[in-house]
Amino acid sequence: MIKTKILAPSQNAHPYPLLIKSLLLSGQRYEPNNEIVYSDVLRYSYKTLIQRICQLANVLTEAGVQAGDTVAVMDWDSHRYLEAYFAVPMIGAVLHHVNVRLSLDQIIYTMDHAEDNYVLVHDDFLILAEQFGKKIPSIRGYVQLTDTASAAETSLNTLGEYEALLASASDQYDFPDFDENSIATTFYTTGTTGNPKGVYFSHRQLVLHTLNMAATLGCYEGQPLLRSNDVYMPMTPMFHVHAWGVPYVATMLGVKQVYPGRYEPNKLVELFAREKVTFSHGVPTILQMVLDSEAAKTTDLSGWKMLTGGSAPTLGMAKHMADRGILFYTAYGMSETCPLLTATYLRHDELAKPMSDQMAERIKTGVPIAMVDLKIVDVMGNDVPHDGESMGEVVARAPWLTQGYYKEPEKSDELWENGWLHTGDVASISPEGTLEIKDRIKDVIKTGGEWISSLELENLISQNEAVNQVAVVGVPDERWGERPFAMIVPAEGYSIDAADIKQHLQHYVDSGQIAKWAIPERISIVSEIPKTSVGKINKKLIRDQVDA
Amino acid sequence: MIKTKILAPSQNAHPYPLLIKSLLLSGQRYEPNNEIVYSDVLRYSYKTLIQRICQLANVLTEAGVQAGDTVAVMDWDSHRYLEAYFAVPMIGAVLHHVNVRLSLDQIIYTMDHAEDNYVLVHDDFLILAEQFGKKIPSIRGYVQLTDTASAAETSLNTLGEYEALLASASDQYDFPDFDENSIATTFYTTGTTGNPKGVYFSHRQLVLHTLNMAATLGCYEGQPLLRSNDVYMPMTPMFHVHAWGVPYVATMLGVKQVYPGRYEPNKLVELFAREKVTFSHGVPTILQMVLDSEAAKTTDLSGWKMLTGGSAPTLGMAKHMADRGILFYTAYGMSETCPLLTATYLRHDELAKPMSDQMAERIKTGVPIAMVDLKIVDVMGNDVPHDGESMGEVVARAPWLTQGYYKEPEKSDELWENGWLHTGDVASISPEGTLEIKDRIKDVIKTGGEWISSLELENLISQNEAVNQVAVVGVPDERWGERPFAMIVPAEGYSIDAADIKQHLQHYVDSGQIAKWAIPERISIVSEIPKTSVGKINKKLIRDQVDA
Repeated sequence: MIKTKILAPSQNAHPYPLLIKSLLLSGQRYEPNNEIVYSDVLRYSYKTLIQRICQLANVLTEAGVQAGDTVAVMDWDSHRYLEAYFAVPMIGAVLHHVNVRLSLDQIIYTMDHAEDNYVLVHDDFLILAEQFGKKIPSIRGYVQLTDTASAAETSLNTLGEYEALLASASDQYDFPDFDENSIATTFYTTGTTGNPKGVYFSHRQLVLHTLNMAATLGCYEGQPLLRSNDVYMPMTPMFHVHAWGVPYVATMLGVKQVYPGRYEPNKLVELFAREKVTFSHGVPTILQMVLDSEAAKTTDLSGWKMLTGGSAPTLGMAKHMADRGILFYTAYGMSETCPLLTATYLRHDELAKPMSDQMAERIKTGVPIAMVDLKIVDVMGNDVPHDGESMGEVVARAPWLTQGYYKEPEKSDELWENGWLHTGDVASISPEGTLEIKDRIKDVIKTGGEWISSLELENLISQNEAVNQVAVVGVPDERWGERPFAMIVPAEGYSIDAADIKQHLQHYVDSGQIAKWAIPERISIVSEIPKTSVGKINKKLIRDQVDA
Repeated sequence: MIKTKILAPSQNAHPYPLLIKSLLLSGQRYEPNNEIVYSDVLRYSYKTLIQRICQLANVLTEAGVQAGDTVAVMDWDSHRYLEAYFAVPMIGAVLHHVNVRLSLDQIIYTMDHAEDNYVLVHDDFLILAEQFGKKIPSIRGYVQLTDTASAAETSLNTLGEYEALLASASDQYDFPDFDENSIATTFYTTGTTGNPKGVYFSHRQLVLHTLNMAATLGCYEGQPLLRSNDVYMPMTPMFHVHAWGVPYVATMLGVKQVYPGRYEPNKLVELFAREKVTFSHGVPTILQMVLDSEAAKTTDLSGWKMLTGGSAPTLGMAKHMADRGILFYTAYGMSETCPLLTATYLRHDELAKPMSDQMAERIKTGVPIAMVDLKIVDVMGNDVPHDGESMGEVVARAPWLTQGYYKEPEKSDELWENGWLHTGDVASISPEGTLEIKDRIKDVIKTGGEWISSLELENLISQNEAVNQVAVVGVPDERWGERPFAMIVPAEGYSIDAADIKQHLQHYVDSGQIAKWAIPERISIVSEIPKTSVGKINKKLIRDQVDA
């Protein structure tokens, strides 16, 4: 390291560690009367939010939670979750966002692996929690989260019900300073193979993610998603990558926030209309369910700013959004990245187009936000040109990336190979700087030094009306390294063979959309494609079957 | 310190120190074609800005500048200064912003005290620099900054002219990582007594100031001062507290920037009109000169967003701004604070008023920005109530405050007494949270446990038409600690005595504006009030004379 000038501070100087508590200062000063709304259950002001965060901190401290302990939350999106986002890290403990959508075994695995000490558990998950028993020996206590007048019966020995506990606690708490590198949050990411892996974020990382996201969403006229006059409602669960980090930004800005509880599409639309929501975000599946809901048919959705991510929205869906007057944006990130890396950025010329013509750009994953160093690299780690065609793995540096997987040193070192976080995504970057995700690197087909996107081949093949389902994987090839292999389920009433598919793909070769060598030699017509337990195509199994 | 959970990162993980180079990533990606304009001399794109910063880094490195060295700049506001804001800290050196408005002796004092090694000096200051000679032994070299076709003659042994040096340097530079606490900038603050004091800011502090300022100026609808579509031109010199930090924010956002050279009011207005400037900032004196210029009389100034600070603007000036359609805002900070602490914040109800009725709020110093912890305290350090009347010294914590005065440990410890940075300003805070600066703490009169603002008394006395000039100071009093003493110069053609003044002030007592005990017993009618060398009232001398 080069030798720069570093001066010792005054012995009296306050060093100001970057702690989550500092994000609470401004919102309440700017807009003390703005509200936090929990579905139909509760609403209160920012002034009350601060008091309740102090009350929760007192409840936890009196229950014996200490700095360094881990507190798990099993809840739908609620004011309680927001309070826990602050109170738990602010007393020096770690907040484990439990993914309640996992199987019981996976939930137990993650909570045991995270060494959870206390669990805040909603009535809907009591039956799950009653089965933890001795399987998670680290647990020392439970707090029950109830939305109704009387708490559900449970055999768990809980400390009491959340609201009752808060009501009897002091609304003052002197939150201590401590090391900004203290872990504030943890949660688990699931792949197609192996156990879930724990990612973790420090106070410093969350503060820096919040500040950069605020600057990005507020300053850029091409993506003015969240400003002080907005009303925010998440449609990404709060247990999923900090609800993309937005609750922290919204609280720092003091904007009105609406938490919808368990997601029900009609309910989301009703809350949007009633609370005058202006900004939401969610994966394409959720947004599509909202669009298709009964309530959406009779509600004016215009002006709703929607950010999507997690997987690529279709152009059809985006145009449907535009038709309804929804302002649609895309972002890119993952559990390992806190998550924000890139977001739609529309320059003057793009914004001047009619909305329907902006959609092709809006569904791409956008441009890296401030302070994100991001590039695409080949298998040797060399930079790949930004020509909009060449593909490379997306690698990134930013001040808010998980520094590893919890208690998995080998996987941590792989994640950070060569000092860059490897996203496992393959993308191109246009000359204008727009990132377009093409595939997962494990699914991309590496053939003769070139990469073919399995997703692109699947898209092209699926445009043949005789095709119902298709999966494309790379299989080993002595000469080329890998070659594409396609597995196809014909549409009902159609009969199809490999030659038909090759002929179909030849049209795209002729029009220059794909190279000649992208056409698979091996095409298998089947009655069913192997799927994972959650219904995704099981490419690993397909590859194993072809190899065998 | 409490014991929290801290995890060792993967051995491969990139720690991402907060360095100024990271602020350069986004602007060029978002708006590569936006321009940097230097008066009538030069204009280029962000793409070129990055190349020129690399060129400057190469010039300095090849000249022998090393990490830890200090590079001084003596220039008016220019593209060169902007390039130095980045290139100098990015090679690990310290950028000394020399206040070229100081006397030669003071300039020499500050440059010697800062141990400057290289000096970038504009032709206008060559005559000054030629006198440095052996008085500043640390200087090893000079670079000449020239705006005309041929550089001025000089006896200094310079490395060459800036543009010529850049033109022959490589436009690639691999900027290293280093400790984020490395000092990036330094400059000097002058008081009424003693030598100038050096403040200093680290890379981490400047990055955090930039991010928070971006979020503040971009997200808050009540103060939307700087967003990506804006065009920025400073009217605060770049040697004065980083031009309030805005060049770093503007560069991160990729907005068009206009640097006007030496400030000439007509020129500033012409640049505003020609370059379609939307956002500027400056002290009230400069803004008044701009408003009063010939060019302003024939130019439509509407929509120009103006931020003021440094001293309080008058309501008359603010109304004049409003009449011209200028959107007027106030901020508060000082050299020690990087500088931003507070800025005008207008809530919904305030924004709904006609502009002329907003002016009383707009000229106050606003609300603390995100992450700033700020309060008013009495002499014992106890919190003072937020009732809009009670006065206390403004003390602050934020992640970007100087950690001391360079090589002045005692003054550093005083600055940070009790772990809070003492601003030396006395203010009230309204129940809505708006800060209003009332006085300097050394001028406030502490009497019987209460504080009287000397500025407020001066304002009230000056409203008597028989008064030309007035100064109020606190003088020692055995019973009350201090009592106010007023020194008055009568207006021409008027004769006045102490009783007249007391009677005049009694009206304000009767109307409830001041307390009875605020009326000075001792009032002295004089022909002249002692002034400092720069024309300010010399309160220290007045106090000394009264004591004697």
